[in-house]
Amino acid sequence: MAPGTPLVTLTTDIGWAYAAQMKAVLYRALPTVRVVDLAHDLAPHRVGEAAFLLRHMAAGFPAGTVHVAVVDPGVGSARAAVAVACSDGSRLVGPDNGVLSPLAAHLGLRRCVRLSRERVAPGARGSATFDGRDLFAPAAARLAGGAPLDELGTPFDLEAKPIPTAVHRHGGVDGTVLHVDRFGNLITNVEPGALPPGVRRVVVRFGRGRPRILPFVRTYSDLAPGRLGLLNSSFGLLEVAAREASAADRCHAGPGDPLRLEGFGAPTPPARDKN
Amino acid sequence: MAPGTPLVTLTTDIGWAYAAQMKAVLYRALPTVRVVDLAHDLAPHRVGEAAFLLRHMAAGFPAGTVHVAVVDPGVGSARAAVAVACSDGSRLVGPDNGVLSPLAAHLGLRRCVRLSRERVAPGARGSATFDGRDLFAPAAARLAGGAPLDELGTPFDLEAKPIPTAVHRHGGVDGTVLHVDRFGNLITNVEPGALPPGVRRVVVRFGRGRPRILPFVRTYSDLAPGRLGLLNSSFGLLEVAAREASAADRCHAGPGDPLRLEGFGAPTPPARDKN
Amino acid sequence: MAPGTPLVTLTTDIGWAYAAQMKAVLYRALPTVRVVDLAHDLAPHRVGEAAFLLRHMAAGFPAGTVHVAVVDPGVGSARAAVAVACSDGSRLVGPDNGVLSPLAAHLGLRRCVRLSRERVAPGARGSATFDGRDLFAPAAARLAGGAPLDELGTPFDLEAKPIPTAVHRHGGVDGTVLHVDRFGNLITNVEPGALPPGVRRVVVRFGRGRPRILPFVRTYSDLAPGRLGLLNSSFGLLEVAAREASAADRCHAGPGDPLRLEGFGAPTPPARDKN
Repeated sequence: MAPGTPLVTLTTDIGWAYAAQMKAVLYRALPTVRVVDLAHDLAPHRVGEAAFLLRHMAAGFPAGTVHVAVVDPGVGSARAAVAVACSDGSRLVGPDNGVLSPLAAHLGLRRCVRLSRERVAPGARGSATFDGRDLFAPAAARLAGGAPLDELGTPFDLEAKPIPTAVHRHGGVDGTVLHVDRFGNLITNVEPGALPPGVRRVVVRFGRGRPRILPFVRTYSDLAPGRLGLLNSSFGLLEVAAREASAADRCHAGPGDPLRLEGFGAPTPPARDKN
Repeated sequence: MAPGTPLVTLTTDIGWAYAAQMKAVLYRALPTVRVVDLAHDLAPHRVGEAAFLLRHMAAGFPAGTVHVAVVDPGVGSARAAVAVACSDGSRLVGPDNGVLSPLAAHLGLRRCVRLSRERVAPGARGSATFDGRDLFAPAAARLAGGAPLDELGTPFDLEAKPIPTAVHRHGGVDGTVLHVDRFGNLITNVEPGALPPGVRRVVVRFGRGRPRILPFVRTYSDLAPGRLGLLNSSFGLLEVAAREASAADRCHAGPGDPLRLEGFGAPTPPARDKN
Repeated sequence: MAPGTPLVTLTTDIGWAYAAQMKAVLYRALPTVRVVDLAHDLAPHRVGEAAFLLRHMAAGFPAGTVHVAVVDPGVGSARAAVAVACSDGSRLVGPDNGVLSPLAAHLGLRRCVRLSRERVAPGARGSATFDGRDLFAPAAARLAGGAPLDELGTPFDLEAKPIPTAVHRHGGVDGTVLHVDRFGNLITNVEPGALPPGVRRVVVRFGRGRPRILPFVRTYSDLAPGRLGLLNSSFGLLEVAAREASAADRCHAGPGDPLRLEGFGAPTPPARDKN
């Protein structure tokens, strides 16, 4: 990327009107900045789901991009605000509540500082409820403008909150719904390698719901209209989907809900992919 | 437009979080690209409505823009993925399901290729459920970067799926609702020329609903608050609207629903506008 | 900001698909323009709420930015369309219905013209229902491209519609809900200075609803999960919020609703901040 045109991405649950105030700060501090909206409609306060999405949305951006995340129910409390430098030169800015953790692990955490209000935005009044505008955006502008991480705060250990992994138990797999997308597809934390090669049908049960025998298919159109199935999602994790219908509605399931997969014969130890 | 700053527009029904993954691919492949979000909240799987909107959203962009459309219920199936070169130098990328067809016809289809995964993204693993990220975005980056269409695939006949036209019958017009906007306004496929000059009232009936006598007005504020009327929409097609209220709710109508206009005296053969 | 890369921001209630048509006009007229989406999901037709948000979203942008607002229930009527030059060099474009008024007052109104269709977009056909595309976007492109205000219209007095202020009465404060954010937080027009220093509890009543005794806290996490409280919002105005829950749902309150604060002892005359 040409010098002078840094990318800053925004990932939030705060909605467009608040995010606009972050953009104002960014463009004023760094007129050549290019702000990229990743999402402002994340489920409010769901740090785990946001962490999962941020890792998948941001990972592919060019080295050197600054990624800002604002899913921050603890804003104004004692929770730290941090900036992270990654091995590829990317920088991450946000609260230390786990939202940055999977992305930092994926890109390789090189250094982390706890943001200091005095260093980032000296003399600013700020608010107790919107660090996105008052602390993260100014910090991102400084980093995008070339400031070294250490100008903005003091060394800090980022809280490690990995995406929860599924567990093989009693001939099945116990997992979790990580994300429900706009179509109602249920993205789980179960890796495709958990299923034996050539499996055709899997028993799926959400929480204490009734078990369902679902076909394991390649893509949505392999299902009859409205029918549920299991497939390998574009996240590289298993997904319960209904063709042109909402699996979330059909299964009464949502983010954080437990699910169990079984009935696919003797499990083989799965190869663990990085996610 | 200056060389080196190509525009790529995105029009999808997949939501912001998936679209962000397309942006990552675009910015990584072509750091100077400028990505423009047209819409990511299109009604899921409604190819016809998306095709209509894409034609109206994209048509006004500068010659040379690359437009990517992802409304793709058949992803992963045998349906082709295509790139289209238009007479004004614009390029279109998306599935061959009709979503590109009205825009290509409007801009003038000059050449079409079926995208080859091997040529577009050689060596990439890809997924069976997200060609937007794995095929269309890389293809768009290549085209925006100056690659000729023929580098990306082999000649192909784009499926022609025009926007359905209204039919004059028995002294009235049988049409369809093409789009419901955010206000609940019902955009139809009936051209204003279908009504005789000076018409004041029209009988409108959605499907088997009750006929309503609606005033034909110039703009929303010619109606009393909450009242229904018929007007010439900004799409150049007739629209059923309610002043500061939802005509869709009021008429229980939505995209794809049939409607009939009548009671406006002897019809004159309408001049056919291009839409 | 470098010459040739002007910023144009868009704030609308029209949704993404219509806003995309405004972007097409802007990029075609001025290929180097940088369009920034502030919000396209504002509550339909709520001019007062939009005016409040626009003032807070746009105020922080660099001097010289062109801000376009399209919340325009009177489109096509006799209401004027205007462009405003502000003291810091920013320009505002939109309908003369009050939506620009608080921002113009905040930035300092220097000059206002009533837009002339003939001067802004000579020869264009236009529509009676979408000035955003047919008049405001072309005007914004001209201004961003360097055209002086007076090329686009004739001098005009912008209607002054300030954000309503709260009133001290009978030992309490009568205010209004200005905005409900995505979390359901209720942003009021009551300034924090209306409360005596050190206040711990306030009686809050929405309309004829039951009075509630709410703690006055610093931030959300000072509340127990789901509990209501009063705090100083990031807008510099008092906000009724529930921790990780919707205060709007809990209090059955929304934009424009009256509220009364009392029970905080002898009121002191508040210092009036600029909002």
